[in-house]
Amino acid sequence: MSSTQTVSNTTAPTQFLQVNGHSYAYRRFGNGSGRPLLFLQHFTGTLDNWDPAVTDPLASGREVILFDNAGLGRSSGEVPPTVAAMGRHPMAFLEALGIEKCDVLGYSLGGMVALQMVQDRPSIFRRMILVGTAPRGGEDIMHLEKPSLTKRIQDPTNRGYDVLRKIFFTASPSSQAAGEAFVRRLSKRKDDLEPVSGPKVANAQMAAFRDWEQFEGERFAELRGIRHPALVVNGVGDEMIPVSNSYRLGENLANAVLITYPDAGHGSLFQYPESFTRHAAAFLSSDFESAAF
Amino acid sequence: MSSTQTVSNTTAPTQFLQVNGHSYAYRRFGNGSGRPLLFLQHFTGTLDNWDPAVTDPLASGREVILFDNAGLGRSSGEVPPTVAAMGRHPMAFLEALGIEKCDVLGYSLGGMVALQMVQDRPSIFRRMILVGTAPRGGEDIMHLEKPSLTKRIQDPTNRGYDVLRKIFFTASPSSQAAGEAFVRRLSKRKDDLEPVSGPKVANAQMAAFRDWEQFEGERFAELRGIRHPALVVNGVGDEMIPVSNSYRLGENLANAVLITYPDAGHGSLFQYPESFTRHAAAFLSSDFESAAF
Repeated sequence: MSSTQTVSNTTAPTQFLQVNGHSYAYRRFGNGSGRPLLFLQHFTGTLDNWDPAVTDPLASGREVILFDNAGLGRSSGEVPPTVAAMGRHPMAFLEALGIEKCDVLGYSLGGMVALQMVQDRPSIFRRMILVGTAPRGGEDIMHLEKPSLTKRIQDPTNRGYDVLRKIFFTASPSSQAAGEAFVRRLSKRKDDLEPVSGPKVANAQMAAFRDWEQFEGERFAELRGIRHPALVVNGVGDEMIPVSNSYRLGENLANAVLITYPDAGHGSLFQYPESFTRHAAAFLSSDFESAAF
Repeated sequence: MSSTQTVSNTTAPTQFLQVNGHSYAYRRFGNGSGRPLLFLQHFTGTLDNWDPAVTDPLASGREVILFDNAGLGRSSGEVPPTVAAMGRHPMAFLEALGIEKCDVLGYSLGGMVALQMVQDRPSIFRRMILVGTAPRGGEDIMHLEKPSLTKRIQDPTNRGYDVLRKIFFTASPSSQAAGEAFVRRLSKRKDDLEPVSGPKVANAQMAAFRDWEQFEGERFAELRGIRHPALVVNGVGDEMIPVSNSYRLGENLANAVLITYPDAGHGSLFQYPESFTRHAAAFLSSDFESAAF
């Protein structure tokens, strides 16, 4: 249970935990009096996609635990085609680590997994940070076939992390400059790297998005039962998971503060890491029943 | 130009400034290195409607200037029937005080006046806080004839500030408790009180709301030209000026951070004064070009 001395995702060693025949890749670092903070990652992202400018400041007040879900990076198994099934892996992982309750930062697909987990087992989370994500029944979730996105994703001049600069940030010079800084930070990690996700991962996760857009009964009704303090964050120019989905979270979760950032896309937390981590840390440090911090 | 020693709106003396044949009532207190912060008030509200839990913490880092627009409280003249005309009074007032540039906190109608002022004279404001307000062309602005609002406004058991508790807060026990605390704070001021606004004030301001709902050309286009850092705040349950109007501000102002509060109505800043003033002070203290703080 002890944390390592490493305090950055640039250098934190990847660890492996065997649970029920699965091997889960994760990184765990930082310390402080806060509960551990579980990081749940975006579409096709692995441990290497966590920006040290986001993980490291938060690791100064608590342990952070970055987690590769089944089939991602060096975690074994197949990517499940539903968010419901994706939620079972981090649940088993936390149980095996002996963590009964933690905080969570779910980004994009990871936010959906966090919402699924808290519905399945409300006691698993104390406080939730949900960035660039959507509730079940949300709208226009990850339609990469949209012309505006396809053009950028398929541009052959964009390689590796540069694709993220194009799709996580807006076209403005200041947002693109922030995107370049983000790519430089990710690129600092040189060893113990994760394999890059292929089409099999992408296809299964896409199936999960399509399923997540469906809903039965009253739209968003299940959110009203989630009383956990939540901090919802997005950029107003998110083309991958539009900000309207964050509005619905803020309106329908019983206890959520929403923050939106200007001139920012899907990667708002990477565009404004100082602001984001300052708010996230203040939110996590609060013990109020209300999400207001 | 010197500030008084008073540091609370519970005790700050009302002052009067004569400008172009008008007499404007105002209160000015606090000190610190920040620019003065001009407070522009809500529908029918006067100097006495500013919650000391909001004004006083902000007055510890700067002078705050509470202002009665023409025809309100003990300011002379008639309430103009358009926001455009309402903007000219604080402009003349600031000029007479010798303040070339200040920060502004515009609440509800006051936020509309602030938006009008910054369009008419961009140099007048450094940073803007816009709470529970709407852009020109916004939707469902102050339709007090809605059955849900009429019932509460006309309930004879609600007297004086209790009406505000009913319409600025949600029906939840915690929001109503916050509303009671708000009313207690306003009621602490015993002397040097403002006259309560009558139907003449209300009717002129209502005409201004109806005009503000109208727009010509591309909706919200004028907001994109406002590059001032802005902090937009609202409660997700605002029935007087729905939160969708704050979404449009966050999306269309060039440089705005939006914060929404859970289980809160029009009076979110009075429901969560510690959180609101903490964020407002951090936002005002920033010198970044970006609104992100």
